[in-house]
Amino acid sequence: MATSQVNVGIIGAGRIGRVHAENLAHRIPEARIVAVADVVEDMARKLASDFQIPAVYNDPRRILDDQQINAVLICSSSDTHAQLIEDAAAARKHIFCEKPIALDLAKIDHALAAVNKAGVKLQVGFNRRFDPSFKRVRELVASGEIGDAHILRITSRDPAPPPMAYVKVSGGIFLDMTIHDFDMARYLMGSEVEEVYAAGSVLVDPEIGKAGDLDTAVITLRFANGALGVIDNSRQAVYGYDQRVEVFGSKGMALAANKTTDAVTQSDANAIHSAKPLYFFLERYGDAFAAEMREFVLSVAQDKMPPVTGIDGRIAVVIGYAALKSVKENRPVRVSEVDRT
Amino acid sequence: MATSQVNVGIIGAGRIGRVHAENLAHRIPEARIVAVADVVEDMARKLASDFQIPAVYNDPRRILDDQQINAVLICSSSDTHAQLIEDAAAARKHIFCEKPIALDLAKIDHALAAVNKAGVKLQVGFNRRFDPSFKRVRELVASGEIGDAHILRITSRDPAPPPMAYVKVSGGIFLDMTIHDFDMARYLMGSEVEEVYAAGSVLVDPEIGKAGDLDTAVITLRFANGALGVIDNSRQAVYGYDQRVEVFGSKGMALAANKTTDAVTQSDANAIHSAKPLYFFLERYGDAFAAEMREFVLSVAQDKMPPVTGIDGRIAVVIGYAALKSVKENRPVRVSEVDRT
Amino acid sequence: MATSQVNVGIIGAGRIGRVHAENLAHRIPEARIVAVADVVEDMARKLASDFQIPAVYNDPRRILDDQQINAVLICSSSDTHAQLIEDAAAARKHIFCEKPIALDLAKIDHALAAVNKAGVKLQVGFNRRFDPSFKRVRELVASGEIGDAHILRITSRDPAPPPMAYVKVSGGIFLDMTIHDFDMARYLMGSEVEEVYAAGSVLVDPEIGKAGDLDTAVITLRFANGALGVIDNSRQAVYGYDQRVEVFGSKGMALAANKTTDAVTQSDANAIHSAKPLYFFLERYGDAFAAEMREFVLSVAQDKMPPVTGIDGRIAVVIGYAALKSVKENRPVRVSEVDRT
Amino acid sequence: MATSQVNVGIIGAGRIGRVHAENLAHRIPEARIVAVADVVEDMARKLASDFQIPAVYNDPRRILDDQQINAVLICSSSDTHAQLIEDAAAARKHIFCEKPIALDLAKIDHALAAVNKAGVKLQVGFNRRFDPSFKRVRELVASGEIGDAHILRITSRDPAPPPMAYVKVSGGIFLDMTIHDFDMARYLMGSEVEEVYAAGSVLVDPEIGKAGDLDTAVITLRFANGALGVIDNSRQAVYGYDQRVEVFGSKGMALAANKTTDAVTQSDANAIHSAKPLYFFLERYGDAFAAEMREFVLSVAQDKMPPVTGIDGRIAVVIGYAALKSVKENRPVRVSEVDRT
Repeated sequence: MATSQVNVGIIGAGRIGRVHAENLAHRIPEARIVAVADVVEDMARKLASDFQIPAVYNDPRRILDDQQINAVLICSSSDTHAQLIEDAAAARKHIFCEKPIALDLAKIDHALAAVNKAGVKLQVGFNRRFDPSFKRVRELVASGEIGDAHILRITSRDPAPPPMAYVKVSGGIFLDMTIHDFDMARYLMGSEVEEVYAAGSVLVDPEIGKAGDLDTAVITLRFANGALGVIDNSRQAVYGYDQRVEVFGSKGMALAANKTTDAVTQSDANAIHSAKPLYFFLERYGDAFAAEMREFVLSVAQDKMPPVTGIDGRIAVVIGYAALKSVKENRPVRVSEVDRT
Repeated sequence: MATSQVNVGIIGAGRIGRVHAENLAHRIPEARIVAVADVVEDMARKLASDFQIPAVYNDPRRILDDQQINAVLICSSSDTHAQLIEDAAAARKHIFCEKPIALDLAKIDHALAAVNKAGVKLQVGFNRRFDPSFKRVRELVASGEIGDAHILRITSRDPAPPPMAYVKVSGGIFLDMTIHDFDMARYLMGSEVEEVYAAGSVLVDPEIGKAGDLDTAVITLRFANGALGVIDNSRQAVYGYDQRVEVFGSKGMALAANKTTDAVTQSDANAIHSAKPLYFFLERYGDAFAAEMREFVLSVAQDKMPPVTGIDGRIAVVIGYAALKSVKENRPVRVSEVDRT
Repeated sequence: MATSQVNVGIIGAGRIGRVHAENLAHRIPEARIVAVADVVEDMARKLASDFQIPAVYNDPRRILDDQQINAVLICSSSDTHAQLIEDAAAARKHIFCEKPIALDLAKIDHALAAVNKAGVKLQVGFNRRFDPSFKRVRELVASGEIGDAHILRITSRDPAPPPMAYVKVSGGIFLDMTIHDFDMARYLMGSEVEEVYAAGSVLVDPEIGKAGDLDTAVITLRFANGALGVIDNSRQAVYGYDQRVEVFGSKGMALAANKTTDAVTQSDANAIHSAKPLYFFLERYGDAFAAEMREFVLSVAQDKMPPVTGIDGRIAVVIGYAALKSVKENRPVRVSEVDRT
Repeated sequence: MATSQVNVGIIGAGRIGRVHAENLAHRIPEARIVAVADVVEDMARKLASDFQIPAVYNDPRRILDDQQINAVLICSSSDTHAQLIEDAAAARKHIFCEKPIALDLAKIDHALAAVNKAGVKLQVGFNRRFDPSFKRVRELVASGEIGDAHILRITSRDPAPPPMAYVKVSGGIFLDMTIHDFDMARYLMGSEVEEVYAAGSVLVDPEIGKAGDLDTAVITLRFANGALGVIDNSRQAVYGYDQRVEVFGSKGMALAANKTTDAVTQSDANAIHSAKPLYFFLERYGDAFAAEMREFVLSVAQDKMPPVTGIDGRIAVVIGYAALKSVKENRPVRVSEVDRT
């Protein structure tokens, strides 16, 4: 039976939970937020007040027990994702979960098995797939307008590094930041990554190096279809969030430039000046977050496969481990090497 | 006493009323929509249902009589604006009114006198002032970064002409379409228009000519500060809504280009292809409409002067009449010539 | 009999004479420079030395008397052009003459009559027609790719005003500077200008005003085919030579942007910075000057009509007078009004 | 003693010899071409005729024996370069040699030793260093305006593969094509490449693969200063010669885009269309070739070190061999590994 109205419970009332709440409340008439839970109950209360959410809890269990709720958003801290997926699946809720599902492949597999067994939907939060420019590049590749894809280039640079406390538990740059680019690579090319060579450096902040992490990286990808790709990452682009992709093929090239705050150029005696890229992901991917959530809600309401699945979430983590291993051993690593578990 | 919450009544539940309702409901926490009225009650009912508006009427009088309402939006057909302003002022409501206040200067003056007498606020719907790019150009002019302004250029072309039924009651291209550009000219330059020379043609659709109107125009403006300006208009740009401005001055130039649907370029064996401008005003000025409404609500809530006043609404109409007279007599017309009433 | 080699004499060894000499010497194998004359013989000598020109004179008469010379370039001061055209025509030389032919219409007509009578070719130096970008815009208009042309926009701003001594004998901004834009307007639109309304100001330098001239102007054009156009001029754009054109039509728009010194953008914490337009006409129109001269030489060598004729030179001056009259009388002036002589 | 006039002999009258001859003849007054030699004497004769070169030979020996010649350009086929360098050095001529000096490191070392012993100058033909945009990027890096350089990106794609006959003797994509990018990498970063990881594919033409070569590559570079770089290459970009570079650093980014044939955009009902990149190296690097030759002539005339030396020529070849080894062994290769000879 088709669900015409999706009743949503939100687990985690932080920054990203708020983004989804706002989109659900204002842009997705097919959804209704019926509860929010956060271990910091005040944050849940504030979110509820801002978006007229009837129920507020400090325990996600209460959401899972609520029979009227069809779907949950898991927006809590990363280390809670896998268990919450299992619990939500057991409670027969459809699931939207922020990335990563887990940093441990065994945990991911356990969670995905629970999802499969329960027959619920799971969408992973790779929001960038829903950016209008990246979507357009994907369409140009998928429709054959650029011919066979030969070379992929992704530039992905944050405006500033996260706090060191976060860096230390993030799983490292590949699992925290590049994971989005790994997913973007698969999405744009429509082909699986078979081999990864990652070169990394600590050039932004020596503290990041002391924590065993990198802040600058160039990662070469070899795809199943023979195409090559490269991702470059930095934790700090002083001019703002730099998010560009390019697919080059036998019939041409599709390239997505950055979005800027305005379309003004100022010409003076020195130069022509124009606006910087939008500052960070909340600004750049505002429309993408809304489209992502709408797709999730529609996949539940219309009983369709979500556009990004648990498998997608798993593969990006696997590629991340291949990149980690590549850096450690300074050699190209086949993705299959790290996926024997 | 500062009003912390603005209770709004919306008169007119058409396309633009809906835009304002959505912004009030979702982006402006300082406002609450308490009633909507439309002579077509079904439209009012639909709007109320979409945005949880408690009261629905088919008579705007009901809104004016509601003591809890502080502010009204006048989004009904243009011919009703002036009388509704007078009625709202008499009812001590603050007023946001779509342009034009009226096509008749005497009616405008009567309405503004009522507003003055009642001591209520009146903001006129020149939404383009709130576009981030145009706002940025204004800031560059106002801050002196481009020096003394010498030349203004405005390109303003619609994607398609309105229906002939609308054309016939629109007051003509200058009062219907160019009126926005006249206001933009004053806003960007920070100087009053003293003289207008308008050249017009019928090149898009001969039916428009038969109705006594023009569909293509080039209008020269002479400002009080000696600067010159030019506006070019067309009712039909097949590539979409073309909205560009440029101010040239003694220290440089500020130029606002169009906004496009995405930031993708496709290179092939023929050329490099990129996205067209956003289709029309709802797409292009989405952010501007939200900022405009927020400013109105804040001017009421904080008892400040609105950013666009009734006088601004009046002056743009006067310049429109000067343009009309200029076309009829094929000579430059001083704005003071048409403002003797 | 087709001339396979064009023997050229250059009259006037100043800046523009040098540009043509270099192009003839290096890029146009069909031409040979056999003599140069300048009243300042040292300048002629220097030019001859730089480009291996065999004969050097201080009197242009010597060039006209040289039987081996087929074609002359008139690059001397403007007030000598008309008489030199007559003399060259009488000597049966083909003529390339810098603009303007003369500031006096009667003199122009006298010169053109002499050219006609002698049956020699006359090309006038409207170099901008040969700019690759403007040529491409013309092609898009001529081929019908933008449909019927409705609106023309030309921005033409110099980086700095000429010396006051020059301003005083220049004939004024319309005959000295805008004359190029008037020709560009006719060229791009493929339709004649019928009416002109010019608004001018003195905003750059009050000395220019004291000399009876303007430094800032906005000129509206009405074409025979009903289309409208606008030119804006300034004697001083601090960011460099601003030379843009745009033709808007029923099927779209063709727009030529400025050329810049390089294709580099620098992004920093403040903005994205890019290169200014090329400084002035020698930089911007380098390729155009070469193409212009090649076309002249080929029209002589292959006995073809030159791409810009004496009539073109005359019409641009007539439009200039219409603009002058328009400013004086502050009204639109039909071109036919000033062309009764 | 400073040489005020440089007498040049050109060895090799093919396409690139002609480019240099034209620049010497027309744009570099400090030089005089006194002889040209080509084994195909007709080609030498044609070049001599086009640029008034007095002496024509079919044997380069005749140029080396000419006492009035100070400098020679080696523009003959690549396999002759090393021996001609040795011969020219022995004859005490300053040398400009096209890349590569040789494909064999021992031969390069032998040639460089001869140059050193003779005390003559040797400039290698890495023309791209003289491109105005790349030069500007280098200046921004060298001046510290982008801070410490962290990431280099070079895109270098040819419009079409060379003939198979050429591919077979070219030394492969890295020594033939990427060699320019290796030099550009060192030039832009001001730091030496220490390690190379090259991933290659055959995606353009299987014949290239049969010849043991690649047509598509992504090469990661690790610099002595810790920075990372990536080059991507294709033998066939259907939209034309794609030559872009980008340096990202702690204070910002410098990016050089492609040069296009014109600055025109055409907007229609489908999209906005603009010009493709200039077709190939002769078009794109016309100015660079001229500047390169001027710098060589000036280094001889003023007894300065040439801007690109024999060592630069050698290092780019060494990096090429590291890339080759990397592809063969599918692992990162330290440049020092292939430079033990």
